[in-house]
Amino acid sequence: MNATIAERLAWVAVDWGSSNLRAWAMADDGQVLAHAGSERGMLSLAPAEYEAELLRVIGNWLPATGRVPVRVCGMAGARQGWREAAYLPVPTRLDGLARGAVTPPVSDPRLEISLLPGLCQHPDDSGRTFDVMRGEETQLAGLAAREPGFSGAVCLPGTHAKWARLEGGELCRFETFLTGELYQLLASHSVLAHSLGDDDPTHPASREAFVDAVRDAVAAPQAFSARLFGIRAQDLLDARLPAGEARRARLAARLSGLVIGLELSEVCRELPRDSVVTLIGAESLCARYALALDALEMASQRLDAGAAVLAGLGLAHAALSG
Amino acid sequence: MNATIAERLAWVAVDWGSSNLRAWAMADDGQVLAHAGSERGMLSLAPAEYEAELLRVIGNWLPATGRVPVRVCGMAGARQGWREAAYLPVPTRLDGLARGAVTPPVSDPRLEISLLPGLCQHPDDSGRTFDVMRGEETQLAGLAAREPGFSGAVCLPGTHAKWARLEGGELCRFETFLTGELYQLLASHSVLAHSLGDDDPTHPASREAFVDAVRDAVAAPQAFSARLFGIRAQDLLDARLPAGEARRARLAARLSGLVIGLELSEVCRELPRDSVVTLIGAESLCARYALALDALEMASQRLDAGAAVLAGLGLAHAALSG
Repeated sequence: MNATIAERLAWVAVDWGSSNLRAWAMADDGQVLAHAGSERGMLSLAPAEYEAELLRVIGNWLPATGRVPVRVCGMAGARQGWREAAYLPVPTRLDGLARGAVTPPVSDPRLEISLLPGLCQHPDDSGRTFDVMRGEETQLAGLAAREPGFSGAVCLPGTHAKWARLEGGELCRFETFLTGELYQLLASHSVLAHSLGDDDPTHPASREAFVDAVRDAVAAPQAFSARLFGIRAQDLLDARLPAGEARRARLAARLSGLVIGLELSEVCRELPRDSVVTLIGAESLCARYALALDALEMASQRLDAGAAVLAGLGLAHAALSG
Repeated sequence: MNATIAERLAWVAVDWGSSNLRAWAMADDGQVLAHAGSERGMLSLAPAEYEAELLRVIGNWLPATGRVPVRVCGMAGARQGWREAAYLPVPTRLDGLARGAVTPPVSDPRLEISLLPGLCQHPDDSGRTFDVMRGEETQLAGLAAREPGFSGAVCLPGTHAKWARLEGGELCRFETFLTGELYQLLASHSVLAHSLGDDDPTHPASREAFVDAVRDAVAAPQAFSARLFGIRAQDLLDARLPAGEARRARLAARLSGLVIGLELSEVCRELPRDSVVTLIGAESLCARYALALDALEMASQRLDAGAAVLAGLGLAHAALSG
């Protein structure tokens, strides 16, 4: 036990995803006392294994006696997770996620666990389609908590990139894109794998190839799968490409631009010209999206994903403790 | 040795692709005396192994003495194949492929091998983009041989689906789509794999799901990667879907419709309303494309891939023997 932390510990914030878990020891005044994590997420845990894994990560923060609230968002609340916290339907106010929280059974009497729900969306006349999120809603709640009454378009890039429309702190609708997964599949397992290397977004030639590809995808999204094969053909035929790793980096940047551009060609149709898109995520990925948006004359601002999820878990903690 | 075949054998036609080889024993009058094949293609053969593999497949057709012409199209002529037959550039007349044939060294004096070239395309002001084909050009030559002066749009569905524009026996331009490979990657390796089963195109519900997806993709190609994730979300949320294998078949049909629809949304923009698309390929895959085209009010006709490649190889044989 770490006495310095245990003395001041008010609650624990946990973001527990498909492939990892991140936890923060929180003081009453919102200060982060410590943070820790592991690479065991929903995909590698059976329901009976969650408690032990959590104790392995946060056990030395806990006092010897007394109950500590642990607020958890993400895939731990999925049907295949620790215990299902059923989806709440959109539209929904983001300050009300706590009403869908569930409590899994635990052995250690010090743990008071709340698993927050994800969100689901059903088709309707306004163009909504079937969609789900689990984890990102808490980041969106964090944004709304930090900027009360927030309205605007929010993008959470990643394996399954999410775009959400917020109006006065309400989540109106959202759309998920297979962008990151498409990139990985194509770069690792397709005929393009032979042509691609490590993308280096800091290199001017890679940036140019990325931006050109974004513009190409937006100009003709229907040509997407032809443009994919075009990467292979360009590798075979284009005498102006450099050799070796520079060539492979340039073509990887083009693939990245095509998949992100396809995503943007869908969302940008509905965004007014003067919109500022809020990006929530890791710095390097958000920088790439910012570059793509800039190429389409769209402005963006960034909120760190960790800061967002902590703010959202804090909001849920306040509601559950009130 | 099969004496009945060896006596009448005039030449051997070979379609040697990435993953297999098909060969036909041909008489002087164009009659097919026998056919054979193997599952060893360019991806599993080193240059020095081609001759032995060919003899393993066609050896018992050969007479004891005398030279037999063997006309080969496909990836055997790729840089990574038996010996490179450099690409001919488009536009090109399809009855002139033989001028790019090359002869690999062989040990058996009875073999007179010709490897036919593929085609390449470079970008220009008319909208052509980098593209390559190897094998399909011989099927297109076969179509032009069977229908002299053929003009129109031709589609060769497959892992890398090709669309070609022919004018009076000339190949003007072509475009390759990653359609079949995208389907396989998504169905086998993505988050969608959990939701998909064996697609059954003969089932009315699967046909309806396929056709709806084609129309969805053509109506909004920019939503392609969102529609992909939508398959997963629909599986999680749509109470109207049947259970079990019927559900998985329906969702697989939707994925098939999305990837084929994306392809058609690109090519159909340039096709006049009264076009008849010529499909060259296997019956079941061509039937699927015909259904998709019909949903977009486009007519189609089919030419068997084997018949096409034999006609194209026959044309090359006549040119090389003339």
